[in-house]
Amino acid sequence: MIAPHGGTLIQRRLVGKEREKWLEKASQFPRISVSEVTAADLVCIATGIFSPLTGFLTEKDYYAVRDDMRLADGTVWSLPITLPVPFEQEEAIRKSSYVILQDSQENILAVVQVESVYQVDLVDEAKRVFGTDDAKHPGVNRLFNQSSLYLGGEIWLLNEPDLGLFRQYYFEPAETREQFAQRGWKRIVGFQTRNPVHRAHEYIQKAALETVDGLFLHPLIGATKADDIPADVRLRSYEVILREYYPKNRTFLGVFPAAMRYAGPREAIFHAIARKNYGCTHFIVGRDHAGVGNYYGTYDAQKIFDRFTAEEIGITPLFFEHSFYCKRCAGMATYKTCPHTKEHHVILSGTKVRQMLYAGEMPPPEFSRPEVVRVLIDGLRRKDTVLK
Amino acid sequence: MIAPHGGTLIQRRLVGKEREKWLEKASQFPRISVSEVTAADLVCIATGIFSPLTGFLTEKDYYAVRDDMRLADGTVWSLPITLPVPFEQEEAIRKSSYVILQDSQENILAVVQVESVYQVDLVDEAKRVFGTDDAKHPGVNRLFNQSSLYLGGEIWLLNEPDLGLFRQYYFEPAETREQFAQRGWKRIVGFQTRNPVHRAHEYIQKAALETVDGLFLHPLIGATKADDIPADVRLRSYEVILREYYPKNRTFLGVFPAAMRYAGPREAIFHAIARKNYGCTHFIVGRDHAGVGNYYGTYDAQKIFDRFTAEEIGITPLFFEHSFYCKRCAGMATYKTCPHTKEHHVILSGTKVRQMLYAGEMPPPEFSRPEVVRVLIDGLRRKDTVLK
Repeated sequence: MIAPHGGTLIQRRLVGKEREKWLEKASQFPRISVSEVTAADLVCIATGIFSPLTGFLTEKDYYAVRDDMRLADGTVWSLPITLPVPFEQEEAIRKSSYVILQDSQENILAVVQVESVYQVDLVDEAKRVFGTDDAKHPGVNRLFNQSSLYLGGEIWLLNEPDLGLFRQYYFEPAETREQFAQRGWKRIVGFQTRNPVHRAHEYIQKAALETVDGLFLHPLIGATKADDIPADVRLRSYEVILREYYPKNRTFLGVFPAAMRYAGPREAIFHAIARKNYGCTHFIVGRDHAGVGNYYGTYDAQKIFDRFTAEEIGITPLFFEHSFYCKRCAGMATYKTCPHTKEHHVILSGTKVRQMLYAGEMPPPEFSRPEVVRVLIDGLRRKDTVLK
Repeated sequence: MIAPHGGTLIQRRLVGKEREKWLEKASQFPRISVSEVTAADLVCIATGIFSPLTGFLTEKDYYAVRDDMRLADGTVWSLPITLPVPFEQEEAIRKSSYVILQDSQENILAVVQVESVYQVDLVDEAKRVFGTDDAKHPGVNRLFNQSSLYLGGEIWLLNEPDLGLFRQYYFEPAETREQFAQRGWKRIVGFQTRNPVHRAHEYIQKAALETVDGLFLHPLIGATKADDIPADVRLRSYEVILREYYPKNRTFLGVFPAAMRYAGPREAIFHAIARKNYGCTHFIVGRDHAGVGNYYGTYDAQKIFDRFTAEEIGITPLFFEHSFYCKRCAGMATYKTCPHTKEHHVILSGTKVRQMLYAGEMPPPEFSRPEVVRVLIDGLRRKDTVLK
């Protein structure tokens, strides 16, 4: 079994008496309401998805991550996992040893030890982490709408936030590791997605699966852009494609509770490391992984892995090209494996496919499995009805 | 660039004055005529294909390889590369410091230093190396037809044997390493074959290629079984499939001069290590790799890699399942990636395909590219005409 990042699978969830003790004395500490993204981060830290993090970054770790993609101790870590807190509460926080985090309904979620309170330059963070300070970038936009005062320190999760987690497919790293071991899988490839699985993705997943023991299909269900297909509809589409086109004993479907950052290259490293914590040995990195708009070069999310040694990352990235159906090859391929020109290829843009789905039209079977398309059209129609 | 096995790319070819010196004094030493297999081994040792071997196994290395798949110094080495010599010449050999090796036309090929002369138990060797002493096994049969007196010692190649090497595609390890570097390939997958490339092989090669930078198609052209398709016909079939179905900038065709041993699992290790010497970082190991008849279990050639650490082997083996066209998937797949039952699969036995080709019939396009089939039918027809 592959070692978690940093060597130990972190567990920061309190139960039983320890938990009750904290809940009893919670009223002694300042309380801060956190966003949906922070609630998801709390779960990710508490369950070891973000191992070796045991809390939100302290000032020293923040600058090391922001500037060098490493924690202060040198461990590779590419995204600042931070806790923005209101300036109005700065004094109270600084005076306290602990702070209680609550959701928007004032339910207690977690306790944070006050180790480090520091103000940051959000524009600088945006430029370094996202490569842009353009507020139209969804990750930058979210950053600019939060406080620039950060609280760093270890956390203990006291109550589970309601992340709409699709319980059936919610497995924590300790559980997926157990599941993989039960199946006798030694080499597991993880696939991150926030989209339905069209044939292009199926091809890439299966090409990777051919060389390992099992596929961990791991869709992100945390906060995404408004125009991404809703997670529940996507999940039904994953169920149907797995049932119809994948051997049961070679695939495992789980949900990834983290929010999308759209940080491209840095998020590719982050996604790979999180999947290592889940027990994956390999991770698929496609073109423009975790990208948005034209903020990143097509291969930036692959090239960034060269900046670290294989040992530092630990999980093996598998880099894929854009894939398509080629009529001349009579099969799926990429520009790495198909020598034929564009007129032989069935390629549809994401925008075009979305238009077709919303209009109830079937993309060609070379592009999407009909069973998947029917689920998507049906799911999007229901959403539409609900909204009206 | 991946390090050669044992760390150094061996070079045991003499040229210029050094070579002339040996040719002049050749008449002082006993002369032994060697088989086609030994002539191929000489080239493989001299050009570093068999690095770290610098000659034929001495007694100490022979027993270490036979019993533990390692050289006496612990380096993994799975097949005994030995020089059988006639008992009639034993006394002369033992008295001499060197022996001259010649081909069947008495052309001088190489000089061997007499380090170790030893008699072996061929039945024991057969059982341990081939897992059987059945003389119907082609490797065992060849073994039993040779002397059980072995000469071990370092060699120097003085003249190139005529191996019918298809010069255009003959690249030595130093040359392929240079070629891969020129193309900027860091990760290269090697594919060993003694068969034409049907769609099943194409699929496996391309699935592997999707995760690396380049494919080294490396057909064995040394001695094979009589019923294998002749190397020159196969080479024409490789040319046509590469031209029609593979991107030029992602493939490299070379020939592998070694003889087939049909030693299954042990030969899979041997084939992988030889390809590491050529500069490959990955090596495809299919079902029953280098097998023949029913002597080996389907996955034995894959499982054997578990007996060594990744560092000891150095090159990464990629294990593949049997592949086929699936009508329900509408594409190529294996049992790892396709959940459908046999009636959806286009599967033809090797025997059936051979019969069709000899009869001039086209296997279905889901089985073989028509361009490849035409070359094979045409090539086999010519051979037939020549033989008649």
